[in-house]
This record gives sequence, structure tokens and C-alpha cells, in this order.
Amino acid sequence: MAKRITNLSPLDGRRRVIIEGVTPEIDGGRHAIKRVTGEAVRVEADIFADGHDVLTARLKYRPAGRGSWLETEMEPLGNDRWRGEFTVGEPGSMLYTIEAWVDPLRSWRCDLEKKVKAGMEVSSELLAGALLIREAAGRARGPDARRLRVWAEGLESTRRGRVSARVGRALDAGLMEVAGRYPDRALSTVYGRELRVVIDPVLARFGAWYELFPRSCASEPGRHGTFKDCEALLPEIAAMGFDVLYLPPIHPIGRSFRKGPNNRPQAGPGDPGSPWAIGGVEGGHKAIHPELGTLEDFRGLVRKARALGLRIALDIAFQCSPDHPYVKSHPQWFRHRPDGSIQYAENPPKKYQDIYPLDFETQDWRGLWQELRSVFEYWIQQGVTLFRVDNPHTKAFPFWEWCLGELKAQHPELIFLSEAFTRPRLLESLAKLGFTQSYNYFPWRNTKAELTAYFTELTRGKSREYLRANLWPNTPDILTQYLQHGGRAAFMVRLILASTLGASYGIYGPAFELGVDQSREPGSEEYLDSEKYQIRVWDRKAPESLRELIGRINRIRRENVALQSDVPLRFIPVNNEQLLAYCRGSETQGNLVVVVVNLDPHHTHQGWLTLPLEDFGLDPDQNYQMQELLTGAHFLWRGARNYVELDPRFVPAHIFRLRRHVRSERDFDYFL
Amino acid sequence: MAKRITNLSPLDGRRRVIIEGVTPEIDGGRHAIKRVTGEAVRVEADIFADGHDVLTARLKYRPAGRGSWLETEMEPLGNDRWRGEFTVGEPGSMLYTIEAWVDPLRSWRCDLEKKVKAGMEVSSELLAGALLIREAAGRARGPDARRLRVWAEGLESTRRGRVSARVGRALDAGLMEVAGRYPDRALSTVYGRELRVVIDPVLARFGAWYELFPRSCASEPGRHGTFKDCEALLPEIAAMGFDVLYLPPIHPIGRSFRKGPNNRPQAGPGDPGSPWAIGGVEGGHKAIHPELGTLEDFRGLVRKARALGLRIALDIAFQCSPDHPYVKSHPQWFRHRPDGSIQYAENPPKKYQDIYPLDFETQDWRGLWQELRSVFEYWIQQGVTLFRVDNPHTKAFPFWEWCLGELKAQHPELIFLSEAFTRPRLLESLAKLGFTQSYNYFPWRNTKAELTAYFTELTRGKSREYLRANLWPNTPDILTQYLQHGGRAAFMVRLILASTLGASYGIYGPAFELGVDQSREPGSEEYLDSEKYQIRVWDRKAPESLRELIGRINRIRRENVALQSDVPLRFIPVNNEQLLAYCRGSETQGNLVVVVVNLDPHHTHQGWLTLPLEDFGLDPDQNYQMQELLTGAHFLWRGARNYVELDPRFVPAHIFRLRRHVRSERDFDYFL
Repeated sequence: MAKRITNLSPLDGRRRVIIEGVTPEIDGGRHAIKRVTGEAVRVEADIFADGHDVLTARLKYRPAGRGSWLETEMEPLGNDRWRGEFTVGEPGSMLYTIEAWVDPLRSWRCDLEKKVKAGMEVSSELLAGALLIREAAGRARGPDARRLRVWAEGLESTRRGRVSARVGRALDAGLMEVAGRYPDRALSTVYGRELRVVIDPVLARFGAWYELFPRSCASEPGRHGTFKDCEALLPEIAAMGFDVLYLPPIHPIGRSFRKGPNNRPQAGPGDPGSPWAIGGVEGGHKAIHPELGTLEDFRGLVRKARALGLRIALDIAFQCSPDHPYVKSHPQWFRHRPDGSIQYAENPPKKYQDIYPLDFETQDWRGLWQELRSVFEYWIQQGVTLFRVDNPHTKAFPFWEWCLGELKAQHPELIFLSEAFTRPRLLESLAKLGFTQSYNYFPWRNTKAELTAYFTELTRGKSREYLRANLWPNTPDILTQYLQHGGRAAFMVRLILASTLGASYGIYGPAFELGVDQSREPGSEEYLDSEKYQIRVWDRKAPESLRELIGRINRIRRENVALQSDVPLRFIPVNNEQLLAYCRGSETQGNLVVVVVNLDPHHTHQGWLTLPLEDFGLDPDQNYQMQELLTGAHFLWRGARNYVELDPRFVPAHIFRLRRHVRSERDFDYFL
Repeated sequence: MAKRITNLSPLDGRRRVIIEGVTPEIDGGRHAIKRVTGEAVRVEADIFADGHDVLTARLKYRPAGRGSWLETEMEPLGNDRWRGEFTVGEPGSMLYTIEAWVDPLRSWRCDLEKKVKAGMEVSSELLAGALLIREAAGRARGPDARRLRVWAEGLESTRRGRVSARVGRALDAGLMEVAGRYPDRALSTVYGRELRVVIDPVLARFGAWYELFPRSCASEPGRHGTFKDCEALLPEIAAMGFDVLYLPPIHPIGRSFRKGPNNRPQAGPGDPGSPWAIGGVEGGHKAIHPELGTLEDFRGLVRKARALGLRIALDIAFQCSPDHPYVKSHPQWFRHRPDGSIQYAENPPKKYQDIYPLDFETQDWRGLWQELRSVFEYWIQQGVTLFRVDNPHTKAFPFWEWCLGELKAQHPELIFLSEAFTRPRLLESLAKLGFTQSYNYFPWRNTKAELTAYFTELTRGKSREYLRANLWPNTPDILTQYLQHGGRAAFMVRLILASTLGASYGIYGPAFELGVDQSREPGSEEYLDSEKYQIRVWDRKAPESLRELIGRINRIRRENVALQSDVPLRFIPVNNEQLLAYCRGSETQGNLVVVVVNLDPHHTHQGWLTLPLEDFGLDPDQNYQMQELLTGAHFLWRGARNYVELDPRFVPAHIFRLRRHVRSERDFDYFL
């Protein structure tokens, strides 16, 4: 009745180790996790075998697509959980997996120790150990092989002394360590999946973004702004401490069905139209709107910005005006109506006759995909490495996975910000499929309960391994109710939340720093006289501008490593529902920042914080100093409970840095 | 610059739907979930596509290895979560997966409704819809095809009436339903994994087990009990309401290093030895200990038991006494010491010289695996379908996956109970790899906090889809401290907890029902004069026996469907730490059972329950009756808060059944 043993390679049946419950792992290994250069990947798994044998487990990692595995030992954490970690290098991608095996030599040593302790006779055990050591010697080379052979002989030979002396040799930790370098892995188990980590540049984690319409940058009112005008503003933007200057689409704007100011259905003869109605006789996604300047002007802007530490981010909006060259050259990329006309965008009953969406179900999807990828490639050639992608959730998801994957394979330094203002699963999915960062629901999280729940989810939920938030208090499409009705204090509150709750944030200016709060109509989040449809003239130097505060905050961010990543984030209890307090950084980082924000832009609020002293490495009886980084003030605190009071007429927040050392009389020279 | 589009089949790029977050799914589909005949598999997933198109999603399922997919529509639950379910049939295994697609016809209808509602002109839309309907007609057959063609014509032809009449036709729900039967699935997405559900017989979920040493069953003291003696006890065991009679190993017992009473190192001449020291000159795992009777006697026992509604479960312990035939016939299946002797079991410093473990790293692992499987097959041929597997966590896990898989493929009705008294991950892993049920930590969960946490984990944790608990208050190896020191009430408490917290439970008797509570030594969980090493004489009819109570409880279990599965289980607040209360069953099942147990075996306790009236479908102002099933008493309750008092000198628990209807004067005929 000898039946076939199916589905097993010759050795499989003896591979006794089980590896499961690996973290991080996204959707069974379907998607990559994300890190930036220099960060650690801490991998954990449940690793065990039948019985009581001692196991060895190694975390294996290598660059994707090349090289052999590197390995690092994993350590048992108890309850069959193991942990190891490796650090990632330059942008690109790496793979990781786990290999583990029953370790007869370590099992033998462990049992020997117990038996010796119990006073048992162990001469047979010494011989068994010698056999295992000889096997290790056979796998070793050079001096190690010789040392192991000598060791084995020492355990075997009764001439070499009494059993107790041989036991002493057997338990030699140094020799054990040598033998451990040559394990027998013939029966090892390798975890069934190779998991991927995408490594992005540090800017993917930490950066301040500034959005600006170049056409509103002219120095004289009435003139259409140019890249040159934009260039003139670069020092001012750099002085505010921004890392990225993000421009709405810079391409020719369609004339058919062009929208007038405040989204009026008809444009007047002088109206410039929306930059998102892309494409005209002058060209499409690879062309520049002539009034902004030339390609050379654009390249100059990119160069000048970089010299000031600023990167240019371009807006990529894959949609066409009826005048886009694609409409004639590639009509097959659009959906047609029964009368043969091209289907414009609609969200019934709304019609967007100035926009033709691309049809991702076109028979010629391959041609479409290649062309769209080539749009990115064109701008990469002009020096652009950051792209803010407009409405990615209205384009086919498989396209993004392919396109971003292809581009990052060639240019791992690229950063793609997903404008995924859509449902949660779609927002997350775009992040899994390759977007580096994502817009999110921050603009609409205003109360203490909302902010606490949302940032707990972002920093501790499942998505934390692949979704990086980029926090925007406003955008050209979003002027929230909170900003509309909270006055200047509301802008400060949202600025401070964005810049200290997350490591990446951005503002749409100068509307933001000037506190522009008029909506087109009550209940709407659209700006009145929005720059989307008209050129605006801004008084950038107005006294009410928040640019000083912005500059100070960005400096604080640069000087405090605690604010340069999204984690750790810990909310701190305050006995006032209008005060939100949180701690950033950690004791081990050597940088602890505590932020307290008065969420009510209208009234002064007071409250008592309860600080987690133990996490801060502080003794309850020790004085410590809280340095207020916005004002430069110093507070001498002691114990967990401390009082704060915030008046929104001044700055409605404290950003404290914990200074452990407090000077006392003991610091005077004469004290010693 | 036309680069290759890699890794994509010709249609992939246009498959716009994403399917992820599928539940239930164990370890990315690596392991099966479990159900019993007649149960539902409720499958959920995140399903979405770019944009706003309407999707259709179908849950697909079929028997593993044969047949084509059956399908059932999935329904959106909101937030892009979808749900569908199917019911499983006879024991075996089935596969399930999900297919979803963008549905142009339903999208069209949805947009049309919005446009009509907004009073928009829709003649172009009618033509577009007609085109889609014609396509559906092309996929349909017979009368449906004709109906759809007529429908399409009705939308196209302006002669057929004014637009408003054509719109009415277009929105015809019946015709839409016909068209829905013929969707275009060319661009559908199929979830990347086929997930498996193992279907067990109902006894795998719901059953009461009774463990008994046949050798202690003789009617006269001093004689070795036999299968015939056992047969004589069957009516008594059946009368107690048990479903399974589980026997410790029935094989010949080794003589070398045989243990004496109370695990003494040397056995006396008349000592019977431990049934787990398997194998002697009379044979091994396929032989019967001669003093128990013949194979024919055993088959007779199986038959007689079945006639009384009892199944026999055998203990399979894969280990050998030094006298086992394998030791001579297959020395390669054992590990050898340097002196050539076979390595006995040890857990340093303890030695078990009467036990030789099998070496799962033997070169001849294939031969070993086949032989071990054949042991199960041998007993299956004798009519056994339930196996309690001894210490499975000390045998290689890949062996179990293979062996149980092969056996269940031939005999899907088999039930394997894993004696996995080991670490949590190993216990869970054995369940994933194929064990039907598992022993667990119930014996050591005694306080309200412990029981609440543990049963919340079992019924709501990740393992609930594959791990079925079988709850044992005692075993021949486990006489807990709680039972040792709690007197008769402690046995009643643990019996009632085991039989009402879980649908499968068992006791080791008669030690249990007789309240045997003497341990070998203080602090030990071993029984004094354990049946493992000696024959015991039991006074089965002793007045203190709990057999009446056991019979009553098993009847209550059979009469209340709420107690026949592990879920739902809901703990009910009581304002006394010694009172544990929980609700079993649900309003929709039509059977709600509330159990209240006094966990303190020494003192009377009182408390107020707070019942979840809404879950019970009860009005706060409505009277209801709680029928006490142990005593037959009736309590008239009203509102959520109700008083209970339990005296451990009587029965330390209530098992209430909710009776909604309370008779009042309105029930008299003359009232109407």
C-alpha cells in the first residue's frame, strides 16, 4: 500500500521549521513597503518547529534584481516571535525574506548545559557533540576548520583529561561561535515569499511644499506672470524654508469651452482659462504655455531653484481640452458618443465640456500607456524629479502600477504625490501601487477627537508601511470652513498642525500666508476669484502675512529631527477639549518636541498637560526646561502635570523642545 | 521611444477593478478555513475601480479539484466593502474566489436616471444604451436575446414614441435584470488567489466527548477490563448524553523500563504499564493489547457504540516502547547515540527510557510517513473516524499537513483532535495544517478576567476561522488546582463552563463525575494513583456522582441550537467579579441562552446582570420569562437589570432560556 508522496521535493519532508506571521508584509506580499535612505526595516515573524530544539533564524535582504543575499541574525523576542533588522541605502528597491533551521549544535549545547547542571553523566553527549563539530569543520575552511577539528578531538579523546575538563571545553563560547558560522542549512526553511521595500530619497519623508501659480507672479499688475517672474520670487520662497515649489500645469490651455472667472461657463476674450484644461494649438502635455516662457526659461527656473535648495514639482493631469493635439492625432484614446463626437467629462447632472477624459479601456491602451509614460520622461529630462499627480483615482489603477514602476526602475529618486481626494480604499490603493506620498483627509479633520483618531490611524494603522501623508491646510480647490470662519488664528492653527503632525506638508500660497478666506458662495470650498480661472495680484509683503511664522516653523523643523518623520507620534492628555497636545521624537533620538495647539481660533484656552515622564526619561522629582521654539521663551517645569494657556490673538500654539539640563548653583565653578 | 509593456497579458491593462482585503483568508491563502456541513461562508472584500462606474461583483465557489464555478452576487456594504455568501455541503473541501467588473450597462442606467431627474436632454444617451443592450443580446440566447433586441429597438427608434416614453422603457427594471444575466466579462478582474474551505461533519463543531480507560471497566475488582466490559457501560455513557467515547491507546504495552504506579521507575510484576508506551512482542500501532480483547471485540464495540449514537475515538500516539516491532524492523526511523543505542526521549534533566521518539529527520522519512499514515488507515478500516492525536507538536509539522491532507482527501468525514498543550503559535499552526479540533488553555483559565479574555480571543480573534476548541476540564494528565481545591462545586462549575462556553467539550471519567481531586503530590497536576499506570476500580453509581447533572446538561445542549456552535458568544456585565455571565445564540436563530456561573466554589454570590435587551429583541417595558433549564424554574424578568444569586452548595450556575411570551389575562379566550 505504498502510496505516492505527492507535492514534495526530496528534502521538503525534513524541513521542520515553520515561518509565518511575517511583518511588515502588505497583502500577502502583493505590494512593497516604503522606506527612505538610511531607515531601518524591522522584520518580525513567528518562527518555530516541533519539539524543543534550538533554532537559528536569519533575515535575508538584497537589492531587487541583483546581488546575492546578505544576512543578519534574528533574535527571539519570546512567544516564538523573532526580530531582525537591516538598513536601506540609496533609492531603489530591495527584497527581504527569512531563512531558519533547527540548529543541532546549539540544541546539543543547550541540553549539555542542563545535564551538566543536573550532575548527569555526559560522556556519550560529548561524543555526539564531537560528531556535530566535525561536521561543522567539514563545512569550514582554513584556520576555522583546523580549530574546529582540534575542538572535536578534545571532546572525543579520553586521554585529553577527565570528563569535567572535556565538558569545560565543550561549553567554550568562542569555539561555539566559530562553529556557528558554518551551520548545516540543508534542511532549512525559507519563507515562501520575497517581500519588497521601495527606497525613496529622504525628501519623500521630510519636506515643505509651496504651491504657486506662475501666471500670478508678475511684478506689475495686469501682466501675465512668467517663469522669469517666478525666478525672482525664489529667494523669498527659499527664505520661508520651503523645499519644494509646486506649479499647477504649465501647458497650453484650451480655448474651446474655456471657463471664465469663478468657473463661469463662458470666458471673456482676455480670460486665461484653467491650467487643468490642457492642450491647445501650441501643444499638449509636453509643451509650455507660451505666455509663461520658453522651455529654456523653464529649465533655468529649475536650475535657479535648485541652487537655492528648492526642487520644482510639476502637476501631471492626464486629461485634455478639446483642442489638445491628441484629439486629432489619437482619437482612439477617447470615448465616443453615438453621434461620433467625443465624450466630455461628466458627473451627472454636471457637464465638463472643456475636458475630455482619456479612455483607459481603449483598444490602443498600450499606445496610450506609452505616451503617458513619455510625458513624465519628457519632464524628467528637463530636470524635474517631483510630480504631483492630479486625480489619479480617475485613471485605471493598473496603469499607475505599471507606469510608476517603470519610471522608478529608471529613476529611483522620483517622488509622486497622489492627489487622491477620494474614498479611503482608493486613496490607500494608489499608495500601494506606487505613489510616494498622498494628499488625504487632513483638511477636514479639525476637532481634537478627529485629529487624534485620524493621526492614530495614519501612524499606527495598517497603511503606515506604505502610505505617506503630505498635509495641506489648503489647496486651490479647498478653502475649508475652518479657514473661512476662523480668521488669522485659524490659518496659524492649521499651519502648525500640518507642519508638526507630519513631516511632509504644503500650502497653496500666497492665498495661505495672506489669510485669504473668502469663498465663492456660502457652503462652498471654492475660493472667490480663484486663481484657477483668473490671474491674481498679491501683496506678498502685506503686514498680516504669515511668512515670518512660516519661516520660523520651517527652521524649527530643520533643527529638530523629531519633526522630520511622521513617527513616533504620541498624543498627550490635556483637560481641555480645545487643546490638542502631542509629542514627537523619542528619548533615544535625543530630540523630544511637545506641541500644544489651541484649536479654537476665537478664545483663549487653558489646561493641564499630563506628560509621559517615563517615556521622556525624566524623574518625577527632577526639574526640566521646556524651550518654546516659536517665541524663544523658557519654561521651568517639574513633574507630569503642567499648565498651558494659549491666546489665539497671538500665536495659538506652543512648540516646546525638552531641555533636560537645568542650571543650578551646582553649575557654578566654585560649587565643586 | 516605444518601450516594451512588460508582464501584462493582452487584456490585463484594461482590467480596471481592484479586489483586495478578502476575508476570510488565512496567511495570504496558504491555509484553509474550516466549516461544517450546512454552514455559510461569508466572504467580504474591498472592491473598487477608478472613477464612478457601477461595478458588479460575484463570489465564485466550487468543490476543490472538480466542477465549474458556481456564482452568487455580492452586495456593496458601503465604503467599497462587498459581501457575498455560500453554504457548504457534504464533508470535503471547496474553493472560493471573487470576480468583478465594471458594468457599463448598470453605469449607463445609473447616469441616465440622474440626467432624467435633472431634466436633461437624453436622446444621445438612449442610443448609447441601445448599443449596450444590443451587445448583451449578442451574448444572450433564445427568448432573452429576442427580448433584449426588441428593447434596444425601442430605445433607438424615434418612431416608437416621444423621448419620455423611450426613457420609461430604458429604465425598465425587468429588462435590465434580463440584460444583467449576460454581462460582458472580457475585462473582469479575478482575485489572484483561490481560497480553500475544509468542510467537516457537524460532529466536528458540536459534540460531547467522554474519555475512559477500558482496562478499568471490569465489573469485578482485580480483573483487567476488556472491550466487552466497555460494551456493557455503553448504555450508561449514552444515557449521559455523550456523542464520542474516546479510548487511550489500545495497543500492546512495552515491558522494557515499564513504569509502576504513580510513575515509579520500576514496575512490579503485575503492573500493567502506561498505554502510551506503545509496542511489544504482540505488535505495535496496528495491534490490540491482548488483555483488552480481539480485533473482532474491538469492531463489536465500535458497532454497538454506533447503535447507541456513540462514536469511538482512538488515541494515536506516534512513539514507541523499546519493545515496539519498528525498533527491529526499521531502526533507521530512530535516532542513534554514539554508542549505537537508540536515543530515548528526554527533556533534560528528565529521561524517559521507556519511550523512543521517532526521528522525523531520518533519511527514510518517506517510508516513515507512509507507515504512520497506514496506522490511521488501518483503524479507519475498523470503523474509526475520530482520532485524538497525542502530542502532535513533537512530530514534524510538514508530516501532519501531508498526512491529514491525504487522509481527509480519501475520508472527508474524519475528525482529528490535536492534543496541542504547547505554545500558542504551535497550537494554532497545527490547526492550520489540518487538525479538526484542538485542546487548548481552557483548564487554566479560571477567573472572570481570564475566561472573558480567552473566549473573546477564541471567538473573535484571527484563529476563529480555523481553530475549533474542544474544552476539557480534566484529562488523565491534568487535574487542575481549581479542581483539587474546590470540592464538588468546582467540578460543576468547570463542567458547566466547558459545556456552555464551547460546542465541543469532553471529560475524563469516571474521575470527573466522581469528583476525584487527589493529586500525586502538592503542586502537581498528576492524579494520585493515576490510571495511566494502574487499573482503578470505580464506584460508578456513587451518590456524589455528577452523572445526573451531566445528562441534564447534554440534553439541554441537544435541545438548544444556541449551544451547538462556539459563536455567537457575548459576555454580559455583572457587578460581581465572581459571577460570569454570557449569552449564546441569537435572536435570528430563535434561541437565546443566558448562562450565569458562580466561579467561587466556596461562597454564595449575588449580583445584577445588565442584559443587552436590544440584541434580544426585547422592549425595556416588556415582561419576559427566563426558564432555568437546570431546575425547570421560571423567572419573570423585566428590563435590562436583573438579580441573580448562586449558592455553590446546590448548583453554582443558571442556564436560562429566554421565553419571549408571558401569559397574561389577554391570553384567555374571553379577553377577545
